[in-house]
Amino acid sequence: MTRVTLDYGNMLSPSLDGRGTDPERLQTDLAERFRSAFEVVDASRASGETGFFRLPHATEMHQNTRALADRCRREFDNLVVLGIGGSALGTLTLRDALLGPLWNELHDEARGHLPRIFVLDNVDPTSVRDLLAHIDIRRTLFNVVSKSGATAETMALFLVIEAYLIEGVGVAAAANHFVFTTDPEQGVLRSIAEREGIASLPIPPDVGGRFSILSPVALFPAAVAGIDTTALLTGAACADERCRSAVLMENPAGVMATLLHAAHTESGASIHVMMPYSDRLRSFSRWFQQLWAESLGKAHDLAGNLVNTGPTPLPAVGVSDQHSQVQLFMEGPRDKVVVFLAVTGMDADVKIGSHRSEPALLSYLGGQAVGHLLEAERRATTEALRQNGRPTMTLEINDLDAEALGELLMLMSISTVYAGALYGVDPLGQPGVELGKRLTYGLLGREGFEGHALPDSDPRWRV
Amino acid sequence: MTRVTLDYGNMLSPSLDGRGTDPERLQTDLAERFRSAFEVVDASRASGETGFFRLPHATEMHQNTRALADRCRREFDNLVVLGIGGSALGTLTLRDALLGPLWNELHDEARGHLPRIFVLDNVDPTSVRDLLAHIDIRRTLFNVVSKSGATAETMALFLVIEAYLIEGVGVAAAANHFVFTTDPEQGVLRSIAEREGIASLPIPPDVGGRFSILSPVALFPAAVAGIDTTALLTGAACADERCRSAVLMENPAGVMATLLHAAHTESGASIHVMMPYSDRLRSFSRWFQQLWAESLGKAHDLAGNLVNTGPTPLPAVGVSDQHSQVQLFMEGPRDKVVVFLAVTGMDADVKIGSHRSEPALLSYLGGQAVGHLLEAERRATTEALRQNGRPTMTLEINDLDAEALGELLMLMSISTVYAGALYGVDPLGQPGVELGKRLTYGLLGREGFEGHALPDSDPRWRV
Repeated sequence: MTRVTLDYGNMLSPSLDGRGTDPERLQTDLAERFRSAFEVVDASRASGETGFFRLPHATEMHQNTRALADRCRREFDNLVVLGIGGSALGTLTLRDALLGPLWNELHDEARGHLPRIFVLDNVDPTSVRDLLAHIDIRRTLFNVVSKSGATAETMALFLVIEAYLIEGVGVAAAANHFVFTTDPEQGVLRSIAEREGIASLPIPPDVGGRFSILSPVALFPAAVAGIDTTALLTGAACADERCRSAVLMENPAGVMATLLHAAHTESGASIHVMMPYSDRLRSFSRWFQQLWAESLGKAHDLAGNLVNTGPTPLPAVGVSDQHSQVQLFMEGPRDKVVVFLAVTGMDADVKIGSHRSEPALLSYLGGQAVGHLLEAERRATTEALRQNGRPTMTLEINDLDAEALGELLMLMSISTVYAGALYGVDPLGQPGVELGKRLTYGLLGREGFEGHALPDSDPRWRV
Repeated sequence: MTRVTLDYGNMLSPSLDGRGTDPERLQTDLAERFRSAFEVVDASRASGETGFFRLPHATEMHQNTRALADRCRREFDNLVVLGIGGSALGTLTLRDALLGPLWNELHDEARGHLPRIFVLDNVDPTSVRDLLAHIDIRRTLFNVVSKSGATAETMALFLVIEAYLIEGVGVAAAANHFVFTTDPEQGVLRSIAEREGIASLPIPPDVGGRFSILSPVALFPAAVAGIDTTALLTGAACADERCRSAVLMENPAGVMATLLHAAHTESGASIHVMMPYSDRLRSFSRWFQQLWAESLGKAHDLAGNLVNTGPTPLPAVGVSDQHSQVQLFMEGPRDKVVVFLAVTGMDADVKIGSHRSEPALLSYLGGQAVGHLLEAERRATTEALRQNGRPTMTLEINDLDAEALGELLMLMSISTVYAGALYGVDPLGQPGVELGKRLTYGLLGREGFEGHALPDSDPRWRV
């Protein structure tokens, strides 16, 4: 059953007083443009080249993940993910959306005695020290997540934690505090796991970090915390099914990618705002940001021409950011599309007290539901932007549970590879970060990376 | 003593292989352009019109804030701020930067028995319900922060909490669980405070929400949690002192505003990335985002011409976002400047274990400090961007304590009003959000706002 709907009326010229896309084009040139993109993507899906399409149907891998999670759930009070980028954002997204941002602060009973889920996704010594001072490592499982097993930050954190565990629980017991999620055959983590008998889970070689949220990368931590990962995959399979159509107006991921690409390349709307009206979806916005930015921000197109292209995704949260960013969205340059995300049917609404009939300035609020205010603000902001000729679209989610979230995550992933084809770039890979890695190795004195001396800062240009 | 330095060499053409600003201009036309902006701002500072300049020197208001905080600190275990936008982001910034993002999760002893600090800055019913289920309201102080006393979201939260308190502790005791931070004379909160004897603190009428971090808005919650607010103001006064010079190259806030404005208006770098290499400064980036976006994103210039101007601030965090956004910064359109923020002299470095000499792939990490890796990654990313002709600048903070943070916050505030003068807009006010407010009132049935019916969604444009 479909749980996510895309409403794109406010991208079209009848709503925007002539600005925006002519709706006829949805059945003419844009339909054709999408059909070409669809065919590129569908060929790579059918050939198995784009691995994330298989994740909703990877039953055996999912069962192994759950079996390991079931065991770990009983043995530990805390799970700490050591990972960065796609190895971190997926777990944060699932945890915050389905358990809530306060999860780790809840008392044992409020958590149903399920483990806390922490993510160390930075080499900030203050964060490492604070976390280690806070948790009891004897009751903590560390999930090291790196496909290559060579990510400098993650491996540094692994070495810090391993030394700490050896001191705290001894060499023999330390291995029981790790689960590695990594390439099934290659890399440092895989070889350590095999040699030293450390529990491990695979990341399929054709699934890149930012497309890995439905792989063991994020499903394992989610399952440890009791999230219904089966429902996540059911929702994702539903999205996959919906996106088998080459007909633009039948394909929600296609409509989203096609209209955002057109707004950028034809009208200069290079900034794509993702703005859920839900605190639980803050991390989702950051997950989408990586997906959209790293996949589409590319120097070269598929023919090798220098294009320096890609939209800039901007996370926001309603209503909070109405008091921070919306002034700019309303009055600033016409360089943005806002994608709203509405959660309908909130299960836990809260009534606003009607005990103060005075002053009149407050009386309109009394007796309303907080969720009704949230909804009114979202609708009003959409309408205000529309009246200013600012394009928006709205993803509506019927109830934020695992199945609906799975559908949303898969829709966004598919939309991203469609957008890759529309922009004419390879949505996989991130060649632009290689130079920074080499320079870092040089600064750290790694063998083979010498001779990358950095220029000194010039004191004339300091104040 | 100065604790913040701006290194702007990588904005200039000698570093960027011809791209970027010609350094001679720092003493010719850009110096002149800045002098004009400085004079506008300095006149409004000297006349007292721009109120935030007075905050570092508002000794009496600060003493009253501290006295009230000293009392509340002993009586409560939790402080919950009800506020949104500038009424929320300042508190989050001070808490996370100086106490750490894990503060609320620490046990009583690790917190030195100081209160937890929560911020409810959204009307998400799930967040309200989760927080109320989590805290003991009998031990909780609620700080309602709204200058006008009319902010719909904040007043809705106030009514929810008040009804909840009346039920939990009774009408008589409920008043003791509130502190209002609001206009000293006007508005609903002020009149309730006076009529019902609720403790309150002032927000000076000429200090807008996004410029209020050094007022009781954020200083009260900070002082309750034991933050050295005197040191914050000392640092801010130092920044104020440094920015009394009309000579561009002597004024750090001036250099930042002038070079960012020039990069935008002359080279199309409309996206200004704020990227601290510190988890503790994530909230700072969001605070800066509101400051820069709401102040500069304006439809009209000071002469009333329609300009639709303003840069788009984009928060990022290093090194995490090297694995999310840096691919786009390196290879995407040349529409960005990255402002790095480096914290030197980290007090709590952590050593990477050197217990694994094999595999060789890891051995370069063993024995290094985590903070050294963080620093190397920042320097390498800066250099990689430079080699790609991408402009950056770096704010260096010598140790992240209250005094250095106060200097940084004041420098950013002053830079924002300089930028307002350079863009030719009024950096105060946010006229663009008024339409959305009126439409919201209409949807909620508030008297006087009827007749704002919203168009129905068109089912043809849904998928």
